[in-house]
Amino acid sequence: MAVEKDSRRFGRKAISVEEARTRALQAISAVGTETVDLLQASGRRSAADVFSGEPVPSFRRSGMDGFAVRAVDTAPASTDSPVRLKVVDDIPAGQIPRQALASGEAARIMTGAMIPEGADAVVMLEMTDTEEGGGEPRIVLKRAIKPGANVSEAGSDVALGELLLKRGAWIGASEIALLATVGKAGVSVYRRPRVAIVATGSELLRPDEPLISGKIRNSNSYMLAAQAGSAGAAVTVHDIMPDELDLLLPAVRRLMDENDLVITTGGVSVGDYDVMTDLLHEWGGQLLFNKIQMRPGSVTSAAVANGKLLFGLSGNPGACFAGFELLVRPVLKALQGAADPHPREVMAAIGEDYPKVNAYPRYLRGRLSIEDGRAVAVATKTEQSSRLLPGLGANAFMVIPPGGNGVPKGTLIPIVLLEE
Amino acid sequence: MAVEKDSRRFGRKAISVEEARTRALQAISAVGTETVDLLQASGRRSAADVFSGEPVPSFRRSGMDGFAVRAVDTAPASTDSPVRLKVVDDIPAGQIPRQALASGEAARIMTGAMIPEGADAVVMLEMTDTEEGGGEPRIVLKRAIKPGANVSEAGSDVALGELLLKRGAWIGASEIALLATVGKAGVSVYRRPRVAIVATGSELLRPDEPLISGKIRNSNSYMLAAQAGSAGAAVTVHDIMPDELDLLLPAVRRLMDENDLVITTGGVSVGDYDVMTDLLHEWGGQLLFNKIQMRPGSVTSAAVANGKLLFGLSGNPGACFAGFELLVRPVLKALQGAADPHPREVMAAIGEDYPKVNAYPRYLRGRLSIEDGRAVAVATKTEQSSRLLPGLGANAFMVIPPGGNGVPKGTLIPIVLLEE
Repeated sequence: MAVEKDSRRFGRKAISVEEARTRALQAISAVGTETVDLLQASGRRSAADVFSGEPVPSFRRSGMDGFAVRAVDTAPASTDSPVRLKVVDDIPAGQIPRQALASGEAARIMTGAMIPEGADAVVMLEMTDTEEGGGEPRIVLKRAIKPGANVSEAGSDVALGELLLKRGAWIGASEIALLATVGKAGVSVYRRPRVAIVATGSELLRPDEPLISGKIRNSNSYMLAAQAGSAGAAVTVHDIMPDELDLLLPAVRRLMDENDLVITTGGVSVGDYDVMTDLLHEWGGQLLFNKIQMRPGSVTSAAVANGKLLFGLSGNPGACFAGFELLVRPVLKALQGAADPHPREVMAAIGEDYPKVNAYPRYLRGRLSIEDGRAVAVATKTEQSSRLLPGLGANAFMVIPPGGNGVPKGTLIPIVLLEE
Repeated sequence: MAVEKDSRRFGRKAISVEEARTRALQAISAVGTETVDLLQASGRRSAADVFSGEPVPSFRRSGMDGFAVRAVDTAPASTDSPVRLKVVDDIPAGQIPRQALASGEAARIMTGAMIPEGADAVVMLEMTDTEEGGGEPRIVLKRAIKPGANVSEAGSDVALGELLLKRGAWIGASEIALLATVGKAGVSVYRRPRVAIVATGSELLRPDEPLISGKIRNSNSYMLAAQAGSAGAAVTVHDIMPDELDLLLPAVRRLMDENDLVITTGGVSVGDYDVMTDLLHEWGGQLLFNKIQMRPGSVTSAAVANGKLLFGLSGNPGACFAGFELLVRPVLKALQGAADPHPREVMAAIGEDYPKVNAYPRYLRGRLSIEDGRAVAVATKTEQSSRLLPGLGANAFMVIPPGGNGVPKGTLIPIVLLEE
């Protein structure tokens, strides 16, 4: 009956979440890069500062359907004394004007088409009348047009050499549109960090196994795979392993060789970290932390070797979720070059009294909503240590500060936005 | 010189964005379903109401490392008169207790392990002393333990038969954890809607072609592919087509046969929809709308045939983006069974004066942020018709209402949250 405690269990010093994150982020650097087709670039991060090699538009462009004119020709136009211009060209988008405009001339022009030499303004179709004069089409203008009207100068959208994306910038639909516009068909991005996930605990069953009394199912591996996948990682989920150091140590060593980051998660709330403690101790790495001032998730560990991180997350599902979001996701963002990998935090009002007092900051899963300009957060469900349902519908952690006498409704508290 | 207007260009009646969305949503129903492995389910939507076939936990579970006891045995315990219990078992997580507890007995138990028959409480390890009495290990308790202390009843996390996910629910990491916990290794989800994207306009170049004077690059196809992909679609981008009805009509018909939804986008701001108007007119479908009360994007069209939608989005990048987010994304969500496919809208303060007056609601790309509990939105850049840069960093549309005299800073306006 092993009631004794291993001496290594003692001396755990809890550090703040922020300090733990800083240690983890300082231990790693970005992964390598690869070039992907624009159609594959969504959700990736740019591996370089991207400058435009083309001005946009690359020519003086009409912003309207109408007539390209020389503004000076229209200056005397009035209702009483209209100006007539001879229409000498018809310029669809994508084509080169046939000729430069001379004085007294105009050219029919379509939106997006190139302004002819000599012209410096476009008059809207709706502001013109047309007439035939001696077999030649003419337009009749009753108002002066300002120089530059409805003309986009070359480079007015994007200048040649303009910085479009910073290194590490996340690439979404708008970024892809911009890259396509300037002719970047391939994009240099950080490759997907390879993440291995392994759950430990002989009490664990796979979801597809028959239920055995006394055992519980491994849910954390699947949850972590979804979390890491949404953070851009290439994830492999490995077989459940028993909490036995002899077996775990070589397996984790191999996974560390083959991956950029390894996550272990225990099967239960406390027992999980006993073996992890041994493993980190035996392993040739440097322990970064093994206790964090947070609930749930205080028994979260990390170690580093050869610039690669091993995270030992709690087996408690809520603690495992929090450990990933507050520590592992930022690391995955940093591995992909993010300039600011920290979770986004805002201050918002708590929507109901929180009566309990915690020794550590509590990360309560909740829903942040905006009502009439005010941001209010409420817990999705009472957060018990092992309940899973609080995760459903949550879009934020409500950070309940430690100490005090609970938090009254309406108090501004820090809110960590979930990014999934 | 074709200054005449086609008679079909007239009679466009602009309808509200909401009305257009309703018409599009009413025209379609959800696509078919498929079963995917839990590791592939992230980002999909459940094709059925999912009920738990197992209680969680499936047995009475210890919430602590400690000793399982019969609470009644501990009732007389006090500092002066401690109670001694004989330790008869050692129950790790995942194993079945060897025996039921009789009066005067206790069992060492680990977090997550099964409570033995007869026991009804767990006393924390830290609250006990141990001693050897005649070769038998015993624990010494100086306090009474309440019945039920540190015991999770079977089904207390999830009851047998509990509704876990509604049909159409989005599946993320928390949903996956829940499904794994109750042994759902495969999940019935709506299959990915097949979306074809085709840009039209002879002025368009691919991003990988050399730049030709007077022409512009097709960016919308790539942007739309990223938008549709983030909405769960399986996307194919097709070759640029000229704005010629003879060529477009058979090509679009074929794409409609092979896909669940087709998006065309013109190359320029206005010219784009001329051919689309003809196409929709000639095509054997029903026109749903061809003008919307919104800026940008008023020239957005949609038609339906055989329950499939064809969207004709503006060629203007900002208008194309807005047309997708406000109309196409909700349809893609509905095709995947979403109960409420509408964009999420909140009221928030505008962070700066908006001086212009619009005839239609203007959807200005901006950044919604929360400062000290207040939600404030500012435009990311001056939104010009053809500029792409406003998209960078935007997380919302600021909806500027039409008419009035501009919108002063601090006014609450509707904000549509972007979901990418």
